[in-house]
Amino acid sequence: MGLPLVLAKYRPAIEAELRTALAGGLPSLYGMLRYHLGWLDEQGRPSEGAAGKALRPTLCLLICEALGGSIRTALPAAAAVELLHNASLIHDDIQDGDRERRHRPAVWALWGAAQALNAGNALASLATLSLQRLAQAGVPATQRLRAHQLLHETCLSLVAGQCLDLGFERRLDVTVPEYLAMAERKTAATIACALEMGGLLAGAAEPSLRALRRCGRSFGLAFQIGDDLLGIYGDPAATGKPVGGDILRRKKTLPVVYALEHASPAAQRRLAEIYAAPPGDGGAAADVTAILSAAGARRYAQRQAEVHCACAARALCGLALPPWAAASLEELARFLASRQA
Amino acid sequence: MGLPLVLAKYRPAIEAELRTALAGGLPSLYGMLRYHLGWLDEQGRPSEGAAGKALRPTLCLLICEALGGSIRTALPAAAAVELLHNASLIHDDIQDGDRERRHRPAVWALWGAAQALNAGNALASLATLSLQRLAQAGVPATQRLRAHQLLHETCLSLVAGQCLDLGFERRLDVTVPEYLAMAERKTAATIACALEMGGLLAGAAEPSLRALRRCGRSFGLAFQIGDDLLGIYGDPAATGKPVGGDILRRKKTLPVVYALEHASPAAQRRLAEIYAAPPGDGGAAADVTAILSAAGARRYAQRQAEVHCACAARALCGLALPPWAAASLEELARFLASRQA
Repeated sequence: MGLPLVLAKYRPAIEAELRTALAGGLPSLYGMLRYHLGWLDEQGRPSEGAAGKALRPTLCLLICEALGGSIRTALPAAAAVELLHNASLIHDDIQDGDRERRHRPAVWALWGAAQALNAGNALASLATLSLQRLAQAGVPATQRLRAHQLLHETCLSLVAGQCLDLGFERRLDVTVPEYLAMAERKTAATIACALEMGGLLAGAAEPSLRALRRCGRSFGLAFQIGDDLLGIYGDPAATGKPVGGDILRRKKTLPVVYALEHASPAAQRRLAEIYAAPPGDGGAAADVTAILSAAGARRYAQRQAEVHCACAARALCGLALPPWAAASLEELARFLASRQA
Repeated sequence: MGLPLVLAKYRPAIEAELRTALAGGLPSLYGMLRYHLGWLDEQGRPSEGAAGKALRPTLCLLICEALGGSIRTALPAAAAVELLHNASLIHDDIQDGDRERRHRPAVWALWGAAQALNAGNALASLATLSLQRLAQAGVPATQRLRAHQLLHETCLSLVAGQCLDLGFERRLDVTVPEYLAMAERKTAATIACALEMGGLLAGAAEPSLRALRRCGRSFGLAFQIGDDLLGIYGDPAATGKPVGGDILRRKKTLPVVYALEHASPAAQRRLAEIYAAPPGDGGAAADVTAILSAAGARRYAQRQAEVHCACAARALCGLALPPWAAASLEELARFLASRQA
């Protein structure tokens, strides 16, 4: 199964906009950013193929175009969301101690945590500065201010989500609602931001913006749950993540949170025992997957991802999107629900 | 010598505005922020006396008022600059491995580097969100957008300065102009931002804003050089920093950069030898201060701080500030030039 066509459709425009956002700059700082975005290899030579999927900017542009807006107008905001997302990835890798990202060493693994911290901060600043280009695209001041507010509320939400997620690592009593509150902040917020930005720059009215936010929230939860499943069951060769990496790191992903509550008493005890031990014991990974299977945790998580996907689709009913846009969104959702990487 | 009166004058208003900016929020995240700002102690109990000097917001309000603006209007921007500055302090402490800040454990020393990274990111987001309150203060949209731009350019500048500073740690050939380019980005940028924000919100014209930026740049360089001197010669009991801490950490402060270029050949070799060795050897600190003295590096740095202070004062000549404001600024400059902590 290839990438959805819509990801290819906007890619050249997004990439050009990102390159504009990163023009010039201190070479030692911007070199890390260009490496992270997949434009340079470890030796600083031009490179290709290590870029992300650009899901968020694609959603932003798709919605803007579907609601009658111009892609050119929305591009600076689409780039802003993508840059903010990448800033958080650079910081996440430091925080989680993940040495790999997209099949290559993480920024901190090459330049050290201190400089990687700078790289993440720089990308977050460039995200905001990217919004300055909305002025040249003719966006009125009030809309530009609203875009700023949206981006920074998202930024704060992201940090709060990451804070909760890290806090979960020490706990064995995380509940499903707590997990959802974390995932909503950490993952769904940037996706909701992308959709709302697209609507905002197409000049959509308040009820439409609210619907886009709801859609983004559900879509984001489905995406995060899909990511959780990939982190346990995904093929490491495809994901670029270690086998059972989320288990080794004792991440409180949805299947684990569910099993800690719903597995048989004996299985709950064994799972709690494994998750209370320090991370890194590879031998326990097989035990964990067996417990998750027996508890129906994988099936539960898959079902939850489907439910949130359906909610996302329902949120958009009132928007009367053109058929091409609805088809593209459905293709994206199907891809995300069944992706292998 | 006590604190300049002007720091006390605006303190209650600044503190109230900062508390407004940090109202509500996720307790586990905001607890770290309130601790860092000196409002809570390590056990989460209300606390006092561990706050910073609030130099930047004071400068912002002072200039705004001196140019005929209203403090109430400028307060959200003054708070924004202070929050951004504090975000960078939290991250700096992680990057530099400094376990103490203002006589207390640094945020990362209590909550770990991963959560402290979140704390810095949250403060940076709250800085920007603080600018949203300019709308309630009646500031027109174009000025608010300009405030956003100014804050984020400053943010990027700060990161670039920190990136250069960390890069210097591995080098023995840092020149004085390179040092100044780093200090301009890392320290002077937030001070220039504070002054320009004050002018912007007082409705000052372009030439005045340029003058304020020039003043802030010089004032900031003087401040950083003063900080360098404190880091070598300051009384640890007063500064809350370890004796010769900057020497132990092999920081390329101005006196060291100067001595590496201008000490006698034998002293240069010895200094280079010490600075090429891994950080932490306390025995060498006495050698370094002796070399700095013999090379006249302390005198040189003091003189440079004075020169930049004079430049800062000159930049303001054309602004025709009221006598009370000019006197307050002079008092501040004198304090910063001769401070012990």
